Amino acid sequence: MYTVHTIPQARAFLDSARARGQQVGLVPTMGFLHAGHQSLMRRAVSECDVVVATIFVNPLQFAPNEDLAAYPRDFVADSELAAEAGVSILLAPSVDEMYPETVVTSVRVSGLSDGLESGARPTHFEGVATVVAKLFNVVGPCRAYFGEKDYQQLAVIRRMVSDLSFNIQVIGCPIVREVDGLAMSSRNAYLEAADREAATCLRRALDAGVALLEAGERSVVAIEAAMSAVVEAEDRATLDYVAVRDADTLQTIAQVEEDAHLLVAAKVGPSRLIDNCAFSGK
Amino acid sequence: MYTVHTIPQARAFLDSARARGQQVGLVPTMGFLHAGHQSLMRRAVSECDVVVATIFVNPLQFAPNEDLAAYPRDFVADSELAAEAGVSILLAPSVDEMYPETVVTSVRVSGLSDGLESGARPTHFEGVATVVAKLFNVVGPCRAYFGEKDYQQLAVIRRMVSDLSFNIQVIGCPIVREVDGLAMSSRNAYLEAADREAATCLRRALDAGVALLEAGERSVVAIEAAMSAVVEAEDRATLDYVAVRDADTLQTIAQVEEDAHLLVAAKVGPSRLIDNCAFSGK
Repeated sequence: MYTVHTIPQARAFLDSARARGQQVGLVPTMGFLHAGHQSLMRRAVSECDVVVATIFVNPLQFAPNEDLAAYPRDFVADSELAAEAGVSILLAPSVDEMYPETVVTSVRVSGLSDGLESGARPTHFEGVATVVAKLFNVVGPCRAYFGEKDYQQLAVIRRMVSDLSFNIQVIGCPIVREVDGLAMSSRNAYLEAADREAATCLRRALDAGVALLEAGERSVVAIEAAMSAVVEAEDRATLDYVAVRDADTLQTIAQVEEDAHLLVAAKVGPSRLIDNCAFSGK
Repeated sequence: MYTVHTIPQARAFLDSARARGQQVGLVPTMGFLHAGHQSLMRRAVSECDVVVATIFVNPLQFAPNEDLAAYPRDFVADSELAAEAGVSILLAPSVDEMYPETVVTSVRVSGLSDGLESGARPTHFEGVATVVAKLFNVVGPCRAYFGEKDYQQLAVIRRMVSDLSFNIQVIGCPIVREVDGLAMSSRNAYLEAADREAATCLRRALDAGVALLEAGERSVVAIEAAMSAVVEAEDRATLDYVAVRDADTLQTIAQVEEDAHLLVAAKVGPSRLIDNCAFSGK
C-alpha cells in the first residue's frame, strides 16, 4: 500500500490509474478504523481496480463544543487495517494540506440536512458536504463507498452528487455490528464496560419499532413511542431522537404506507451514538 | 462543431478526448455571444486541444425581480460565433437537463460574495458558484476561461476552485470593449441609442479614478467621489456603486498602497451594467 499525505501525490497516482483504464474506488474515513470501515474497503477492492482510502478528521464537521480534539486516532493500526483490506493508496492529509487558508467555500444540501442529526449538530452536514465535495475533486471520477450507519449523511451526499453532477457513483454499504447488535463506530472506543452494555439500547429500540411494524402497527407516533421507551428505560442513555421517516426523502410521515426508515440517536456515557434500519412493507 | 444538449453526450466526448491525452478548455456562457465571449473562445482554442463552450441561462443566479425571462437568446447566431472561434463542442442543456429536480444543493463562497454585486443581487453568487461547480463536474479536468468583466465572479470562482480542490485551472481574460470604451455585455442589447451613449459613463468613471491615482491621489474616499461624479452627471444613468478595493481580496481599503482594483455598477436605461479595471502603483 502506497501512503501519501499530499493532494498532488494522490491525484497523480489516481490519474495515471484512470489513464490505464482502471476503475478507482474511494473509501473516505476519519480514521480509527474498525470492521465497518474494513467492510467498505473490501467491497471497494472487490469492485474496483484501484482503491484509495482517505483518513482525515475534518474540523469543518465538528462544532466548537464537540469532540474534535478528543476524536480517537491511531495511524499505525489504521494503515495495517487498510493494507490488509487491499487498499492501494492511503491518503492521510494534514489539516494544513486540506485547508491551507481559511475555507470560505461551503456546500449545503438543504432539506435533507435539516432535522435528525442537525438538531444536535446544526453545522455538521455543511462540513461533511464541503469536505466530501473536496475529496471527490481530489480523487476524481470513481465509485465512492459510504456506510449506511450515517444514513442521513449518505442521503445528503447522494443528493449533492446528483444536484452538482459529480462524476461519482455513490454506494451505500450495510452497517457492520458487534455480536450484540451495537453498530460499529469509532466513538464506541469512548465507552466503559457499563456504557458499552447500555449502548445496545439503540439497536433494541430499532428492533422494537420493526416488531411493531411487523405486527401491523402503522402509526408513526405509536412506533416512535415504543422506540423511545426502550432508550428511556436505559439509565446510562439519554435519548436525542427516534424517528420513522420516508425511506427516500427522510421527510416526516404520519403513517407508514410501504417503505420506511427507522433512526435513533442517543448519548451513552461520553459518546453520542446513532443507528438506523430499513423497513419494507411491500 | 459538435452540438449537444445533454450532459452524458458532453461527458463522453470530453472523457474520450482526455483519454487520448488532449487538454480540454471550457468557456461557460449564458449565450447571446459577442466579441468578448469570442475572445475567450479563441484564447481557449489557442491553448487547448479540445474546447467546450456551454450556453445556459442559469435560473439560480437570477432573483425573482431580475431579467431571466427577458435575457436575450439567439442560438443560431451563438452557434455560428462559437464555430467560427474554433469551438469543438457546444453544450446547450435545457433547464430540465441541468436541474431535473429542484436543486437543494448550493455552493457559497462567503466574504468574496459579499458587497459590490451582492448589494443589488444578494443571491447571485450562490447561483453562479453552484452552476459553475456543476459545469466543472460535467466537463471534468480542464482549463476554464472567464472574462474579467465579471471581476467579482472571477474572484469567487477562483476561491471556490482553491477551497474545494477542483482539478481546474481558472484563466481570467481581459475585457473586450466597443470602440468608445463600453465593456461588451449581452445586456448592451437592451440599450436604445441615447442609453447606449450614456453607458460610456462607466468606463469614463474608471478613467477618472485612474487619472487621479496616476496624479498621485491615494485616498479611496476622494477617488470614489470623483468616479461617482462622472456617473451622476449622466441623466440616463443611476449609480449603484463605485469602489476602489484591494486587488486580491476585494476587501475595502482606505488608502491605495500599491495595487488596487476599481469597480463600477450603474443602471442605464433598462440595463444594469458593470465595469472594472486594475491600477498598479508599482
